[in-house]
Amino acid sequence: MADNWLSTLLTDTPQEGYDLAVLMVRTAVKMTQADPAVRGELRAVYGKDADALIAVSTVVAAHFQTVAAANNYWRV
Amino acid sequence: MADNWLSTLLTDTPQEGYDLAVLMVRTAVKMTQADPAVRGELRAVYGKDADALIAVSTVVAAHFQTVAAANNYWRV
Amino acid sequence: MADNWLSTLLTDTPQEGYDLAVLMVRTAVKMTQADPAVRGELRAVYGKDADALIAVSTVVAAHFQTVAAANNYWRV
Amino acid sequence: MADNWLSTLLTDTPQEGYDLAVLMVRTAVKMTQADPAVRGELRAVYGKDADALIAVSTVVAAHFQTVAAANNYWRV
Amino acid sequence: MADNWLSTLLTDTPQEGYDLAVLMVRTAVKMTQADPAVRGELRAVYGKDADALIAVSTVVAAHFQTVAAANNYWRV
Amino acid sequence: MADNWLSTLLTDTPQEGYDLAVLMVRTAVKMTQADPAVRGELRAVYGKDADALIAVSTVVAAHFQTVAAANNYWRV
Repeated sequence: MADNWLSTLLTDTPQEGYDLAVLMVRTAVKMTQADPAVRGELRAVYGKDADALIAVSTVVAAHFQTVAAANNYWRV
Repeated sequence: MADNWLSTLLTDTPQEGYDLAVLMVRTAVKMTQADPAVRGELRAVYGKDADALIAVSTVVAAHFQTVAAANNYWRV
Repeated sequence: MADNWLSTLLTDTPQEGYDLAVLMVRTAVKMTQADPAVRGELRAVYGKDADALIAVSTVVAAHFQTVAAANNYWRV
Repeated sequence: MADNWLSTLLTDTPQEGYDLAVLMVRTAVKMTQADPAVRGELRAVYGKDADALIAVSTVVAAHFQTVAAANNYWRV
Repeated sequence: MADNWLSTLLTDTPQEGYDLAVLMVRTAVKMTQADPAVRGELRAVYGKDADALIAVSTVVAAHFQTVAAANNYWRV
Repeated sequence: MADNWLSTLLTDTPQEGYDLAVLMVRTAVKMTQADPAVRGELRAVYGKDADALIAVSTVVAAHFQTVAAANNYWRV
């Protein structure tokens, strides 16, 4: 994990904000399970598990709420 | 996934905002499981699973909170 | 599903707002599982499943947060 | 369920707000499962199920967020 | 449960706010399962169950959001 | 657990805010299960459990929402 992976919540577009939310979920997983081999196995499992896919979406949604608020919802 | 699928959170009506929230959930799933064949199988499963249907609703609700705030709740 | 089922988030009372939140959950389920027969079977199952009943309540609560904010919490 | 069970989100104290949040959870359950006998059986089950007890707490917390915001957090 | 257990959401420090959030979770559990003996058994179970421990954390986080907002995040 | 582990929600950067959110989750777990040996066993389990890893991410996301709001999203 890069030393400096989250220097700002501001993005140019909602889509970049969404990508940031996805990155934030992945980083949380890395901070809990540091071993990339174990993470690789887990990803193979949950990629085929509807419940896990939906659960990941829930976390993305929560981070996107934060990022969107930070950007004032990208209103002009 | 289109290169530019989320250019704005602003919609004309709450209903269009709700549709956008549904799209955002689907995109999160695509970003986690890129293979459309696997996604198709999963959809067949969770479409008949009450727990999964409810879980999907949870994520839609979270994204709708964001979209609604972005639109100032479509107050006139 | 009616073409125009969500034209506003504004309601006269908190209770009507709560009813709207329930409607929003039901619509999310419909958008994921379009077949009313399958939905009917699922409802029979989750109506007797404490976990599912509680999970539905969670989604209602999330939508009610949105509706309540839209209505400035019905403060006079 | 009384016809008029949620006429306001305003309460005098945080504790009354908390009680209102609990009421809102119970009402959501009633709206999903109308039969009091079935609800009674379910309550007997989830009252002894740690996961269900915690899940109920989650919904109470979500409604309390709404009620607390409505009351400006009971700041004087 | 004391008659008057939640008279204010205001605390002097974030840490006291966190403690209050924990108290609010415990109280929700008490309101659902009034029997302390049953609660004791459940606590023994979920104290050794990773999923339940995480679930409790979720509810604490939700209440802490409310308490933190009430205190304007303890900004000076 | 240090006596004074949460004296402020303010951090210099989003990344430090994220680290604080992770700390808040760990503290909630400690307050529910005080025995470090039991926590160690549980961590070994959920570190290899995709569902638990995702669930931890959910709680981190909730606390990060709070911390980010406290810091006005680190907007300059």
